[in-house]
Amino acid sequence: MDDVIVTFVEEPELNSPILIEGLPGVGNVGKLAAEHLIDELKAQKFADIFSKHFPPQVLVNDDGTIKLVNNEMFYVKGKGKSPDIVFLVGDYQGLTPEGQYNLTDTVIAWCLSVGVTRIYTLGGYGLGKMVKEPKVMGATTTSELVEEMKEAGVSFKKGEPGSGIVGASGLLLGLGRLVGIEGVCLMGETSGYFVDPKSAQAVLTVLTNILGVKIDFAELESKAEQVEKLTSQIKEMEQSLQDPPSDDLQYIG
Amino acid sequence: MDDVIVTFVEEPELNSPILIEGLPGVGNVGKLAAEHLIDELKAQKFADIFSKHFPPQVLVNDDGTIKLVNNEMFYVKGKGKSPDIVFLVGDYQGLTPEGQYNLTDTVIAWCLSVGVTRIYTLGGYGLGKMVKEPKVMGATTTSELVEEMKEAGVSFKKGEPGSGIVGASGLLLGLGRLVGIEGVCLMGETSGYFVDPKSAQAVLTVLTNILGVKIDFAELESKAEQVEKLTSQIKEMEQSLQDPPSDDLQYIG
Amino acid sequence: MDDVIVTFVEEPELNSPILIEGLPGVGNVGKLAAEHLIDELKAQKFADIFSKHFPPQVLVNDDGTIKLVNNEMFYVKGKGKSPDIVFLVGDYQGLTPEGQYNLTDTVIAWCLSVGVTRIYTLGGYGLGKMVKEPKVMGATTTSELVEEMKEAGVSFKKGEPGSGIVGASGLLLGLGRLVGIEGVCLMGETSGYFVDPKSAQAVLTVLTNILGVKIDFAELESKAEQVEKLTSQIKEMEQSLQDPPSDDLQYIG
Amino acid sequence: MDDVIVTFVEEPELNSPILIEGLPGVGNVGKLAAEHLIDELKAQKFADIFSKHFPPQVLVNDDGTIKLVNNEMFYVKGKGKSPDIVFLVGDYQGLTPEGQYNLTDTVIAWCLSVGVTRIYTLGGYGLGKMVKEPKVMGATTTSELVEEMKEAGVSFKKGEPGSGIVGASGLLLGLGRLVGIEGVCLMGETSGYFVDPKSAQAVLTVLTNILGVKIDFAELESKAEQVEKLTSQIKEMEQSLQDPPSDDLQYIG
Repeated sequence: MDDVIVTFVEEPELNSPILIEGLPGVGNVGKLAAEHLIDELKAQKFADIFSKHFPPQVLVNDDGTIKLVNNEMFYVKGKGKSPDIVFLVGDYQGLTPEGQYNLTDTVIAWCLSVGVTRIYTLGGYGLGKMVKEPKVMGATTTSELVEEMKEAGVSFKKGEPGSGIVGASGLLLGLGRLVGIEGVCLMGETSGYFVDPKSAQAVLTVLTNILGVKIDFAELESKAEQVEKLTSQIKEMEQSLQDPPSDDLQYIG
Repeated sequence: MDDVIVTFVEEPELNSPILIEGLPGVGNVGKLAAEHLIDELKAQKFADIFSKHFPPQVLVNDDGTIKLVNNEMFYVKGKGKSPDIVFLVGDYQGLTPEGQYNLTDTVIAWCLSVGVTRIYTLGGYGLGKMVKEPKVMGATTTSELVEEMKEAGVSFKKGEPGSGIVGASGLLLGLGRLVGIEGVCLMGETSGYFVDPKSAQAVLTVLTNILGVKIDFAELESKAEQVEKLTSQIKEMEQSLQDPPSDDLQYIG
Repeated sequence: MDDVIVTFVEEPELNSPILIEGLPGVGNVGKLAAEHLIDELKAQKFADIFSKHFPPQVLVNDDGTIKLVNNEMFYVKGKGKSPDIVFLVGDYQGLTPEGQYNLTDTVIAWCLSVGVTRIYTLGGYGLGKMVKEPKVMGATTTSELVEEMKEAGVSFKKGEPGSGIVGASGLLLGLGRLVGIEGVCLMGETSGYFVDPKSAQAVLTVLTNILGVKIDFAELESKAEQVEKLTSQIKEMEQSLQDPPSDDLQYIG
Repeated sequence: MDDVIVTFVEEPELNSPILIEGLPGVGNVGKLAAEHLIDELKAQKFADIFSKHFPPQVLVNDDGTIKLVNNEMFYVKGKGKSPDIVFLVGDYQGLTPEGQYNLTDTVIAWCLSVGVTRIYTLGGYGLGKMVKEPKVMGATTTSELVEEMKEAGVSFKKGEPGSGIVGASGLLLGLGRLVGIEGVCLMGETSGYFVDPKSAQAVLTVLTNILGVKIDFAELESKAEQVEKLTSQIKEMEQSLQDPPSDDLQYIG
């Protein structure tokens, strides 16, 4: 069995496509953003990626059938000025460093074979504290792209992220550059404590502007409200536990 | 040395056999069930599977001879309407995710070579609490099989098992489906705290009905009684430790 | 770089040799025994085994030169009725299960190539308590060998060792049997808390009888005395810490 | 994707060069020393080493562009009697034992191909306590080199370092010797608690004498002062926390 197996449901004709990656990570920002974009653009699934670098596990669908753990690729043909777009999403990243390299290498080889012109990797940038208005931080393969992204509203701050970019979002840029594919990582600021649809929306606002596509954010906004409600409840519970007992209980004399 | 080595004691002629897997797992339900069925049907061992994905270990038999850690395959020819059956059992599963994939891939390749038509994987479904009357949960490779299993008394519940199916019981279905072999996982409800012969019996009751074979459950029932006795004793001990000291000890004045 | 590299200092002519393995393990019994036998029989080193399954480390000799971590093979030609003997010793075993299999497989392949007729693996059998007169437990590849070993004073006890034999001492027998080389594991009883030269002596007493060679045990006995002195001191220290303060300190009035 | 990939920015003509390694390790002594020497000698980068044995990670440069985690090689042509020098530096060593062997093996193969005549590996020797005047300890591939190094002021002490030399600094000597390349490890004494520029300076003082090159130490000395200031502050803070409260606070009556 090969380390990584790509099986194609369909082999779409793609015209200088771009790749958008959104795999699980900090606040699941990249995953939420990419999956929302897939839904809104009605992108079609065309490939499965199976690998012994994923957990040895099947998931069970609602109808009782199973699904081998995988990554999936979707595509949508560009309309007007917007380019053909390919998506890389899934439930897992490779379990080991070597697995991460092998999986990314397989994707990059495929990108070369279909002429992918640019890679956008989406992720979260964990701040360790609640964020009211998440900014979108960037990192790119070339300094020209830094300028282009600044104009699109992406923030660049010297020395951030200090720990670099770990996993597929980093490796796709790193290995892509080695073979001449340019790339951008867009990171939505997030606490890192919760799944963060608001941060995903911030990332998508920037990205859709760049791509020249229009989408609806209602679904993400509704998810963001749910998360907000949940976190408020947790905060209240924590506060009530820390609060001093009420007056009448303290009343003694 | 190959990662996985299959050595054949015998190469039986098999007619569209089904495969039943029962390797160690939650409550050892699958292992108990498969081994009981092997005993009752007097199935014959025909192959050993050795692998560097198993522990580097030999076990010592009662007579002082050693046995390299392995998985084993047994077979029994069908009688009347019941099909030829092949069993996969053993003391260990692969130690790493990659090992799990390699081992399962080897078994699936063999299944293809002898024309296995369906795979049943047996396991336990841990509830984290004691179970009086264990039900048998299912997951399958196709929705037609879901219906077939429901008619055979198998339960399907949306969103369960939530964590999917990990290990050989999951992978055999997942990798099997990729090459067109249909499969069913039968999971007996179990606490997950003890080896659970009662849950194994529940699984076998469903499975033997499906297969049209009749077996005796006396051995499993006797094992179940032993486990029940043991767990009752443990419960009593725990209770007596928690009970307040008896009245006469508290009586002072 | 190959996973395992064997470099030969010399390629001795060997006549149906036996292999004796003594790598690090419980109480270092096997290592002590094999190294003592090498010294006493003035065996010659003829091969180094290097491997990426060992730690990435060099040791520093007393003269300031370095030595890449390895396993080593020695040989001695038989005299009279005693056979040609090859030894496998070293500072490390493979770090991973896969590494253990690869290393052992390399040794077994070499054994086949020179016609090794029998393998003795030496180790300790940890009892978790101090042992006055360590017995030598056995496990073998055939029931004929069990009988032969019993006559030589080796103990066999049903169900022991319950956890089997882990590492090179087990795998050499397990993989050896797959290719038709018979083998015996001799395990000296030991507490498992200390390096145990006394247990090594017990193993060697049995082994040298079987091999028909005579050796001096003075060196091992002197090591055993050192260990005994050390453990007595530790016991005394522990006891004095637990003892109640002496009388005059308690005397108050 | 190969396990290790070397990409050349330039293929310099090298005349019997020596290799100097300074990768991360105890007190980062080797890394600091090698990088300082690269700066002072204005060595040129000529190669990148990428590998799936490094973390799956990109670092972000100050200008917002990314850099795939790697090791790098620099060179400087010798002047007068000093030899051509090649440097091996980087942010990471291989993550696994196998990775360490593979990476070092790749470097050694390259050393053979360009005729490297000697390897100096630089590192720290952790003493677990503060060191006023760090000595430079040595280990070499031959006893002739021990003598040569002693004359150059390197210390050799029987039984040190007791745990051997772990990682690239050890393996380059160990694997180098197998193919006939001689080598020296120079270890600066260091506490092991801090990055230690002073220890790096001690190592470089010895090394530059041997190589017959002259460099400025101002930069390292300034770093050493910064570290010293920092550690003094930490000491003071610790002391003030342990000190009894001052007299006037204790004064009551």
